[in-house]
Amino acid sequence: MDKIRIAVDSLGGDNGAEYIVMGISEALSQYDDIEIIVTGDEKELTSYIEKYNCDKNRVRIINSTEVISCHDAPVEAIRKKKDSSLVLALNTVKDGEAQAIISSGSSGAILAGGQFIVGRAKGVKRTPLAPLLPTKGKPSLLIDCGANVDAKPENLFQFAKMGSIYMKNIEGIDNPTVAIVNIGAEDEKGNALVKETIPLLRECDDINFIGSVEAREIPYGAADVLVCDAFVGNVILKFYEGMGSMFMEEITATLMSSLKTKIGALLIKKTLKNSFRKYKATDKGGAPLLGLKGLVVKIHGNCKNQEVSSAIAQCRNFIKNDVTSKIVSAFEDGK
Amino acid sequence: MDKIRIAVDSLGGDNGAEYIVMGISEALSQYDDIEIIVTGDEKELTSYIEKYNCDKNRVRIINSTEVISCHDAPVEAIRKKKDSSLVLALNTVKDGEAQAIISSGSSGAILAGGQFIVGRAKGVKRTPLAPLLPTKGKPSLLIDCGANVDAKPENLFQFAKMGSIYMKNIEGIDNPTVAIVNIGAEDEKGNALVKETIPLLRECDDINFIGSVEAREIPYGAADVLVCDAFVGNVILKFYEGMGSMFMEEITATLMSSLKTKIGALLIKKTLKNSFRKYKATDKGGAPLLGLKGLVVKIHGNCKNQEVSSAIAQCRNFIKNDVTSKIVSAFEDGK
Repeated sequence: MDKIRIAVDSLGGDNGAEYIVMGISEALSQYDDIEIIVTGDEKELTSYIEKYNCDKNRVRIINSTEVISCHDAPVEAIRKKKDSSLVLALNTVKDGEAQAIISSGSSGAILAGGQFIVGRAKGVKRTPLAPLLPTKGKPSLLIDCGANVDAKPENLFQFAKMGSIYMKNIEGIDNPTVAIVNIGAEDEKGNALVKETIPLLRECDDINFIGSVEAREIPYGAADVLVCDAFVGNVILKFYEGMGSMFMEEITATLMSSLKTKIGALLIKKTLKNSFRKYKATDKGGAPLLGLKGLVVKIHGNCKNQEVSSAIAQCRNFIKNDVTSKIVSAFEDGK
Repeated sequence: MDKIRIAVDSLGGDNGAEYIVMGISEALSQYDDIEIIVTGDEKELTSYIEKYNCDKNRVRIINSTEVISCHDAPVEAIRKKKDSSLVLALNTVKDGEAQAIISSGSSGAILAGGQFIVGRAKGVKRTPLAPLLPTKGKPSLLIDCGANVDAKPENLFQFAKMGSIYMKNIEGIDNPTVAIVNIGAEDEKGNALVKETIPLLRECDDINFIGSVEAREIPYGAADVLVCDAFVGNVILKFYEGMGSMFMEEITATLMSSLKTKIGALLIKKTLKNSFRKYKATDKGGAPLLGLKGLVVKIHGNCKNQEVSSAIAQCRNFIKNDVTSKIVSAFEDGK
């Protein structure tokens, strides 16, 4: 196969290009079969590439003169800011120069750009955003958390198939379990969307459907793939983040509240940190936007080098396993 | 006004009638203006009433020969099990003997019974289940978490009004803030339901609408009233419960993992317990089913005496403030 080539948008995030280049440098050192195209401010990127000793034979800069921010209207920004770091990076995938693109920029613009520039794979009706949600057990792929709400049963059905392909090929899970997020365990429970989707999932031989899961079970790792409409997925993902922050703030405040608790904190700090490390999951990469003709990965706006290098590893894995083709072939005959 | 009379279903929960009677006894001691009607096994109830020194002049038993369990189909059970403790208790409200009823039984049966036996107030299209969600700040009323999914904009609009009346009269919050659960902060974000509901809420003079809140903000107490469709509310409520349990299990396991952490645990235990007490909220009573001709309160299946006595206090408060009439008059002219 061709060289693995991954485009990275260095702008649009909160922390600037430096962490992005640090992550690129780490990934280049770790994997000798990859090449990186990085878009952004050429002068700045050149200096960071120097500073972090990137292998210059395997990293190419595309200079951009514009940035898309969270305040830009996504679709309009994608259409008009043709020289933005995000559009230039997406173009490399569209043109076949790269097979994947990573951005920490505006979620809306990444989702819009994925669809309008990279384009949907044939037969795919909707392209879901599918982050891994850390749980007490194995992480679950929460599909869809994106911006396209009011899904139809056939959309959720396709999400289940795409999610299964992803978890099998990227997380190495054999016959991944698929569940639908519901408000009861029985098939007759749920809203109209869920009730119409369940029979489609039950009849599908390509997936390992285990039925409905209630949200109470999600933190325990109820299934490898959790299928839901983007509105519900987005609520779950953001509520998860909010609950995590709130709990950590409460615990920190508790531990710092008196001399006695501060001494207690010293004794438990390291173990506590280890216990909760798995809920961070920046080492798992970013959230893939699935069902496109190439891979688009959204990483956090406040990402640091570790998340960038993990996302590059995730893209490499995706490309090496030819997951785009696997998704395309799963839908090509209109299934 | 009439005597405050509250019906309590002693069966259907996980812990049997004893905790229920303990809670009743506590409430009777605390409030001398209430009377209780308790449904269940007469012999058993008589012995517990004796054991816990209930004021016998203010507690009346209605003997029941049937129980509705979680395994019964709710609507069918309500129709057929006419001598069940739940149906008998609901009948006391329908007949005007009591103004409120509390049950720890099957949620589905309580919701069905509330609608079919107690009946909707005039003008109310749907009766939402509205628990208080503990947050880092003040608790938020999450309305709707019930079983009636696929709400229409006018339903959410009514939930906002009912929730405001509840929070003002029961939690004593002046001009309670109302927000809609959404996937973005701007009015143009959301699914079709949310986008159609927002203008109705913006135009309503009776509520203090502050716009959309993302789920990330919910654990911090984003608004006094959080309006959403029952599917979304149910997911939030159950995910909240699951996240809480999972975090507590992780912390307990961490603290018990070595001698060093066990010593640390001794030093922080009391403060930690105090910090997280507010997230338990069994002292806030149960989840009211609003918009009925009387008050129906659902308490946890595994409730203990504290939750029962709090729920009785909640009902007393509701009745004393005549909240049912306030809700009825808010909708009587078809607003």
